[in-house]
Amino acid sequence: MDFKGKIRIIPDFPQPGVLFKDITTLLKDGEAYKAAIDALVERIRPLKPEIIAGPEARGFVIGAPIAYALGIGFVPIRKVGKLPAETVSVPYDKEYGRDDLAVHRDAFGPGTRVLVADDLLATGGTIGATVDLVEKLGGLVVGAAFLIELTYLHGRSALTAKLGNDKPIHALIQF
Amino acid sequence: MDFKGKIRIIPDFPQPGVLFKDITTLLKDGEAYKAAIDALVERIRPLKPEIIAGPEARGFVIGAPIAYALGIGFVPIRKVGKLPAETVSVPYDKEYGRDDLAVHRDAFGPGTRVLVADDLLATGGTIGATVDLVEKLGGLVVGAAFLIELTYLHGRSALTAKLGNDKPIHALIQF
Repeated sequence: MDFKGKIRIIPDFPQPGVLFKDITTLLKDGEAYKAAIDALVERIRPLKPEIIAGPEARGFVIGAPIAYALGIGFVPIRKVGKLPAETVSVPYDKEYGRDDLAVHRDAFGPGTRVLVADDLLATGGTIGATVDLVEKLGGLVVGAAFLIELTYLHGRSALTAKLGNDKPIHALIQF
Repeated sequence: MDFKGKIRIIPDFPQPGVLFKDITTLLKDGEAYKAAIDALVERIRPLKPEIIAGPEARGFVIGAPIAYALGIGFVPIRKVGKLPAETVSVPYDKEYGRDDLAVHRDAFGPGTRVLVADDLLATGGTIGATVDLVEKLGGLVVGAAFLIELTYLHGRSALTAKLGNDKPIHALIQF
Protein backbone atom coordinates (compact mmCIF):
# COMPACT_ATOMS: atom_id res chain seq x y z
CA MET A 1 0.00 0.00 0.00
CA ASP A 2 1.13 3.57 -0.76
CA PHE A 3 1.25 4.75 2.85
CA LYS A 4 3.19 7.88 1.94
CA GLY A 5 0.42 8.99 -0.39
CA LYS A 6 -2.02 8.91 2.56
CA ILE A 7 -0.03 11.60 4.44
CA ARG A 8 -1.07 15.21 3.85
CA ILE A 9 1.56 17.95 3.75
CA ILE A 10 0.55 21.22 5.44
CA PRO A 11 2.89 24.16 4.74
CA ASP A 12 3.83 26.58 7.55
CA PHE A 13 2.39 24.59 10.47
CA PRO A 14 2.94 25.02 13.37
CA GLN A 15 5.32 27.77 12.25
CA PRO A 16 6.52 29.38 8.98
CA GLY A 17 8.85 27.23 6.89
CA VAL A 18 7.74 23.88 8.34
CA LEU A 19 6.11 21.31 6.05
CA PHE A 20 3.92 19.52 8.62
CA LYS A 21 3.17 15.84 7.97
CA ASP A 22 -0.50 15.36 8.76
CA ILE A 23 -1.30 11.74 9.66
CA THR A 24 -5.04 12.29 10.12
CA THR A 25 -5.63 11.59 6.43
CA LEU A 26 -4.16 8.11 6.95
CA LEU A 27 -5.95 7.52 10.27
CA LYS A 28 -9.38 8.25 8.83
CA ASP A 29 -8.84 5.69 6.06
CA GLY A 30 -9.68 2.47 7.89
CA GLU A 31 -7.97 0.18 5.39
CA ALA A 32 -4.76 2.23 5.36
CA TYR A 33 -4.72 2.65 9.15
CA LYS A 34 -5.13 -1.09 9.76
CA ALA A 35 -2.53 -1.98 7.13
CA ALA A 36 -0.05 0.50 8.62
CA ILE A 37 -0.44 -0.88 12.14
CA ASP A 38 -0.24 -4.46 10.84
CA ALA A 39 2.95 -3.67 8.91
CA LEU A 40 4.57 -2.25 12.05
CA VAL A 41 3.33 -5.16 14.17
CA GLU A 42 4.90 -7.65 11.75
CA ARG A 43 8.30 -5.96 12.20
CA ILE A 44 7.92 -5.55 15.98
CA ARG A 45 6.69 -9.04 16.89
CA PRO A 46 10.14 -10.74 16.55
CA LEU A 47 11.52 -8.31 19.18
CA LYS A 48 9.18 -9.94 21.73
CA PRO A 49 8.17 -6.73 23.53
CA GLU A 50 6.12 -7.04 26.73
CA ILE A 51 5.03 -3.39 26.83
CA ILE A 52 4.55 -0.61 24.25
CA ALA A 53 5.39 2.88 25.58
CA GLY A 54 4.27 5.91 23.58
CA PRO A 55 4.20 9.68 24.18
CA GLU A 56 1.01 11.72 24.09
CA ALA A 57 -1.00 12.48 22.12
CA ARG A 58 -0.26 11.23 18.60
CA GLY A 59 1.95 8.44 19.93
CA PHE A 60 -1.20 6.95 21.43
CA VAL A 61 -2.88 6.44 18.03
CA ILE A 62 0.12 4.37 16.90
CA GLY A 63 1.23 2.70 20.14
CA ALA A 64 -2.18 1.72 21.52
CA PRO A 65 -3.37 -0.34 18.52
CA ILE A 66 0.08 -1.97 18.27
CA ALA A 67 -0.24 -3.05 21.92
CA TYR A 68 -3.79 -4.27 21.29
CA ALA A 69 -2.74 -6.24 18.21
CA LEU A 70 0.11 -7.91 20.13
CA GLY A 71 -2.04 -8.49 23.22
CA ILE A 72 0.44 -6.64 25.43
CA GLY A 73 0.17 -3.62 27.71
CA PHE A 74 0.38 0.05 26.72
CA VAL A 75 2.13 2.61 28.92
CA PRO A 76 1.29 6.27 28.20
CA ILE A 77 4.14 8.78 28.40
CA ARG A 78 2.58 12.12 29.33
CA LYS A 79 3.26 15.79 29.98
CA VAL A 80 4.07 16.45 33.64
CA GLY A 81 0.94 16.84 35.79
CA LYS A 82 -1.30 14.55 33.72
CA LEU A 83 -0.55 11.19 35.37
CA PRO A 84 -2.31 10.76 38.71
CA ALA A 85 0.07 8.43 40.63
CA GLU A 86 3.77 8.75 41.49
CA THR A 87 5.88 9.55 38.42
CA VAL A 88 9.44 9.97 37.23
CA SER A 89 10.08 12.73 34.67
CA VAL A 90 12.74 14.03 32.28
CA PRO A 91 13.15 17.34 30.42
CA TYR A 92 13.65 17.23 26.65
CA ASP A 93 14.05 19.43 23.59
CA LYS A 94 11.28 18.94 21.08
CA GLU A 95 11.15 20.04 17.46
CA TYR A 96 9.38 23.32 18.31
CA GLY A 97 10.25 24.00 21.97
CA ARG A 98 11.06 22.47 25.36
CA ASP A 99 8.96 20.37 27.71
CA ASP A 100 8.95 17.64 30.36
CA LEU A 101 7.65 14.09 30.00
CA ALA A 102 6.64 11.69 32.75
CA VAL A 103 5.76 8.03 33.33
CA HIS A 104 4.20 6.25 36.30
CA ARG A 105 6.93 4.86 38.55
CA ASP A 106 5.14 1.49 38.70
CA ALA A 107 4.38 1.30 34.96
CA PHE A 108 6.50 -1.87 34.63
CA GLY A 109 9.18 -3.73 36.55
CA PRO A 110 12.96 -3.86 35.96
CA GLY A 111 13.99 -6.01 32.99
CA THR A 112 10.69 -5.58 31.14
CA ARG A 113 11.11 -5.64 27.35
CA VAL A 114 9.71 -2.32 26.10
CA LEU A 115 9.18 -1.10 22.54
CA VAL A 116 8.86 2.68 22.18
CA ALA A 117 6.46 3.99 19.53
CA ASP A 118 5.42 7.37 18.17
CA ASP A 119 3.84 8.76 15.02
CA LEU A 120 6.93 10.68 13.93
CA LEU A 121 10.72 10.45 14.24
CA ALA A 122 11.98 14.01 13.71
CA THR A 123 15.04 15.13 15.71
CA GLY A 124 14.50 12.26 18.14
CA GLY A 125 13.88 14.50 21.15
CA THR A 126 10.52 13.07 22.20
CA ILE A 127 11.46 9.44 21.66
CA GLY A 128 14.82 10.01 23.35
CA ALA A 129 13.03 11.26 26.48
CA THR A 130 10.71 8.25 26.26
CA VAL A 131 13.75 5.93 26.16
CA ASP A 132 15.25 7.78 29.16
CA LEU A 133 12.04 7.25 31.13
CA VAL A 134 11.89 3.53 30.26
CA GLU A 135 15.51 3.10 31.34
CA LYS A 136 14.93 5.06 34.58
CA LEU A 137 12.38 2.37 35.48
CA GLY A 138 14.90 -0.36 34.64
CA GLY A 139 13.16 -1.35 31.43
CA LEU A 140 15.01 -2.79 28.43
CA VAL A 141 14.24 -0.91 25.21
CA VAL A 142 14.12 -3.59 22.49
CA GLY A 143 13.45 -1.22 19.59
CA ALA A 144 11.48 1.73 18.27
CA ALA A 145 8.62 2.07 15.77
CA PHE A 146 7.29 5.08 13.90
CA LEU A 147 4.77 5.75 11.20
CA ILE A 148 6.97 8.47 9.67
CA GLU A 149 10.66 9.32 9.70
CA LEU A 150 11.95 12.76 8.62
CA THR A 151 15.35 11.55 7.43
CA TYR A 152 16.73 15.10 6.98
CA LEU A 153 16.47 15.73 10.75
CA HIS A 154 18.76 12.76 11.56
CA GLY A 155 16.69 11.44 14.47
CA ARG A 156 17.74 7.89 13.54
CA SER A 157 21.40 8.68 14.25
CA ALA A 158 20.54 10.31 17.58
CA LEU A 159 18.36 7.38 18.60
CA THR A 160 20.92 4.79 17.48
CA ALA A 161 23.57 6.57 19.55
CA LYS A 162 21.29 6.24 22.57
CA LEU A 163 20.07 2.66 22.02
CA GLY A 164 23.10 1.05 20.40
CA ASN A 165 23.46 -0.40 16.90
CA ASP A 166 21.72 -3.66 17.73
CA LYS A 167 18.28 -2.13 18.42
CA PRO A 168 15.99 -1.98 15.38
CA ILE A 169 14.37 1.34 14.47
CA HIS A 170 11.37 0.77 12.22
CA ALA A 171 9.68 3.57 10.26
CA LEU A 172 7.02 2.84 7.68
CA ILE A 173 7.30 6.08 5.69
CA GLN A 174 10.35 8.22 4.95
CA PHE A 175 10.38 11.90 3.95
CA MET B 1 -12.94 -10.48 33.56
CA ASP B 2 -12.99 -8.12 36.57
CA PHE B 3 -12.30 -4.93 34.62
CA LYS B 4 -13.31 -2.74 37.56
CA GLY B 5 -10.61 -4.32 39.72
CA LYS B 6 -8.00 -3.21 37.17
CA ILE B 7 -8.82 0.49 37.72
CA ARG B 8 -6.79 2.31 40.38
CA ILE B 9 -8.46 4.95 42.54
CA ILE B 10 -6.29 8.01 43.27
CA PRO B 11 -7.67 10.34 45.97
CA ASP B 12 -7.49 14.13 45.55
CA PHE B 13 -6.38 14.19 41.90
CA PRO B 14 -6.44 16.54 40.06
CA GLN B 15 -7.98 18.47 42.99
CA PRO B 16 -9.01 17.83 46.61
CA GLY B 17 -12.11 15.70 47.06
CA VAL B 18 -11.91 13.98 43.65
CA LEU B 19 -11.43 10.20 43.50
CA PHE B 20 -9.62 9.93 40.17
CA LYS B 21 -10.14 6.71 38.19
CA ASP B 22 -6.70 5.76 36.85
CA ILE B 23 -6.97 3.58 33.73
CA THR B 24 -3.20 3.11 33.29
CA THR B 25 -3.31 0.03 35.56
CA LEU B 26 -5.70 -1.60 33.09
CA LEU B 27 -3.80 -0.40 30.00
CA LYS B 28 -0.51 -1.89 31.15
CA ASP B 29 -2.14 -5.30 31.64
CA GLY B 30 -2.13 -6.64 28.07
CA GLU B 31 -4.74 -9.32 28.68
CA ALA B 32 -7.13 -6.91 30.40
CA TYR B 33 -6.60 -4.14 27.82
CA LYS B 34 -7.28 -6.48 24.89
CA ALA B 35 -10.32 -8.01 26.61
CA ALA B 36 -11.73 -4.55 27.39
CA ILE B 37 -11.37 -3.34 23.80
CA ASP B 38 -12.81 -6.62 22.48
CA ALA B 39 -15.82 -6.33 24.83
CA LEU B 40 -16.52 -2.80 23.56
CA VAL B 41 -16.01 -3.85 19.93
CA GLU B 42 -18.54 -6.67 20.33
CA ARG B 43 -21.17 -4.15 21.49
CA ILE B 44 -20.26 -1.54 18.88
CA ARG B 45 -20.06 -3.75 15.78
CA PRO B 46 -23.88 -4.09 15.33
CA LEU B 47 -24.12 -0.28 15.10
CA LYS B 48 -22.12 -0.48 11.83
CA PRO B 49 -19.96 2.61 12.43
CA GLU B 50 -17.76 3.85 9.58
CA ILE B 51 -15.60 6.11 11.77
CA ILE B 52 -14.58 6.23 15.44
CA ALA B 53 -14.13 9.77 16.81
CA GLY B 54 -12.38 10.24 20.15
CA PRO B 55 -11.09 13.26 22.11
CA GLU B 56 -7.46 13.63 23.13
CA ALA B 57 -5.56 12.25 24.86
CA ARG B 58 -7.04 9.33 26.81
CA GLY B 59 -9.85 8.93 24.27
CA PHE B 60 -7.15 7.89 21.78
CA VAL B 61 -6.11 4.82 23.82
CA ILE B 62 -9.72 3.58 23.68
CA GLY B 63 -10.91 4.84 20.30
CA ALA B 64 -7.82 4.02 18.22
CA PRO B 65 -7.68 0.25 19.01
CA ILE B 66 -11.48 0.03 18.54
CA ALA B 67 -11.07 1.54 15.06
CA TYR B 68 -8.17 -0.80 14.31
CA ALA B 69 -10.14 -3.86 15.48
CA LEU B 70 -13.12 -2.90 13.30
CA GLY B 71 -10.90 -1.95 10.33
CA ILE B 72 -12.40 1.53 10.17
CA GLY B 73 -10.95 5.03 10.38
CA PHE B 74 -10.13 7.00 13.52
CA VAL B 75 -10.74 10.75 13.75
CA PRO B 76 -8.91 12.57 16.55
CA ILE B 77 -10.80 15.33 18.36
CA ARG B 78 -8.19 17.79 19.64
CA LYS B 79 -7.66 20.98 21.61
CA VAL B 80 -7.78 24.06 19.37
CA GLY B 81 -4.44 24.75 17.63
CA LYS B 82 -3.28 21.12 17.45
CA LEU B 83 -4.82 20.08 14.12
CA PRO B 84 -2.90 21.41 11.11
CA ALA B 85 -5.63 21.74 8.45
CA GLU B 86 -8.93 23.67 8.44
CA THR B 87 -11.05 22.90 11.53
CA VAL B 88 -14.42 23.50 13.11
CA SER B 89 -14.48 23.97 16.89
CA VAL B 90 -16.87 24.16 19.84
CA PRO B 91 -16.47 25.39 23.43
CA TYR B 92 -17.40 23.00 26.25
CA ASP B 93 -17.49 22.68 30.04
CA LYS B 94 -15.29 19.88 31.30
CA GLU B 95 -15.23 18.29 34.72
CA TYR B 96 -12.48 20.60 35.99
CA GLY B 97 -12.66 23.69 33.77
CA ARG B 98 -13.53 25.07 30.33
CA ASP B 99 -11.91 24.47 26.95
CA ASP B 100 -12.39 24.26 23.19
CA LEU B 101 -12.30 21.15 21.01
CA ALA B 102 -11.78 20.94 17.26
CA VAL B 103 -12.00 18.51 14.35
CA HIS B 104 -10.72 18.71 10.79
CA ARG B 105 -13.47 20.04 8.53
CA ASP B 106 -12.80 17.24 6.00
CA ALA B 107 -12.57 14.44 8.60
CA PHE B 108 -15.58 12.67 7.05
CA GLY B 109 -18.46 13.42 4.71
CA PRO B 110 -22.14 14.14 5.50
CA GLY B 111 -24.12 11.06 6.47
CA THR B 112 -21.09 9.12 7.76
CA ARG B 113 -21.95 6.76 10.64
CA VAL B 114 -19.75 7.82 13.55
CA LEU B 115 -19.29 6.20 16.95
CA VAL B 116 -17.87 8.52 19.64
CA ALA B 117 -15.51 6.97 22.20
CA ASP B 118 -13.65 8.12 25.29
CA ASP B 119 -12.11 6.55 28.38
CA LEU B 120 -14.57 8.13 30.81
CA LEU B 121 -18.16 9.35 30.86
CA ALA B 122 -18.33 11.88 33.71
CA THR B 123 -20.64 14.90 33.31
CA GLY B 124 -20.71 14.31 29.56
CA GLY B 125 -19.10 17.64 28.66
CA THR B 126 -16.25 16.28 26.55
CA ILE B 127 -18.31 13.69 24.72
CA GLY B 128 -21.11 16.22 24.20
CA ALA B 129 -18.67 18.55 22.46
CA THR B 130 -17.44 15.60 20.40
CA VAL B 131 -21.03 14.86 19.33
CA ASP B 132 -21.52 18.55 18.45
CA LEU B 133 -18.42 18.46 16.23
CA VAL B 134 -19.52 15.26 14.47
CA GLU B 135 -22.95 16.78 13.80
CA LYS B 136 -21.41 20.06 12.57
CA LEU B 137 -19.74 17.99 9.84
CA GLY B 138 -23.06 16.31 8.98
CA GLY B 139 -22.07 13.00 10.57
CA LEU B 140 -24.62 10.64 12.11
CA VAL B 141 -23.69 9.62 15.66
CA VAL B 142 -24.73 5.97 15.96
CA GLY B 143 -23.72 5.52 19.60
CA ALA B 144 -21.10 6.11 22.27
CA ALA B 145 -18.58 3.86 24.03
CA PHE B 146 -16.61 4.32 27.24
CA LEU B 147 -14.35 2.27 29.41
CA ILE B 148 -15.77 3.85 32.59
CA GLU B 149 -19.01 5.60 33.55
CA LEU B 150 -19.28 7.70 36.73
CA THR B 151 -23.01 7.14 37.24
CA TYR B 152 -23.28 9.74 40.05
CA LEU B 153 -22.39 12.53 37.58
CA HIS B 154 -25.38 11.69 35.32
CA GLY B 155 -23.49 12.03 32.04
CA ARG B 156 -25.66 9.29 30.55
CA SER B 157 -28.80 11.42 30.98
CA ALA B 158 -27.09 14.44 29.44
CA LEU B 159 -25.81 12.39 26.49
CA THR B 160 -29.17 10.65 25.96
CA ALA B 161 -30.88 14.06 25.89
CA LYS B 162 -28.46 15.07 23.12
CA LEU B 163 -28.48 11.85 21.07
CA GLY B 164 -32.04 10.61 21.61
CA ASN B 165 -33.23 7.43 23.37
CA ASP B 166 -32.49 5.17 20.41
CA LYS B 167 -28.69 5.64 20.46
CA PRO B 168 -26.84 3.05 22.59
CA ILE B 169 -24.39 4.27 25.22
CA HIS B 170 -21.99 1.49 26.18
CA ALA B 171 -19.77 1.65 29.28
CA LEU B 172 -17.77 -1.35 30.44
CA ILE B 173 -17.29 -0.29 34.07
CA GLN B 174 -19.59 1.68 36.37
CA PHE B 175 -18.63 3.59 39.50
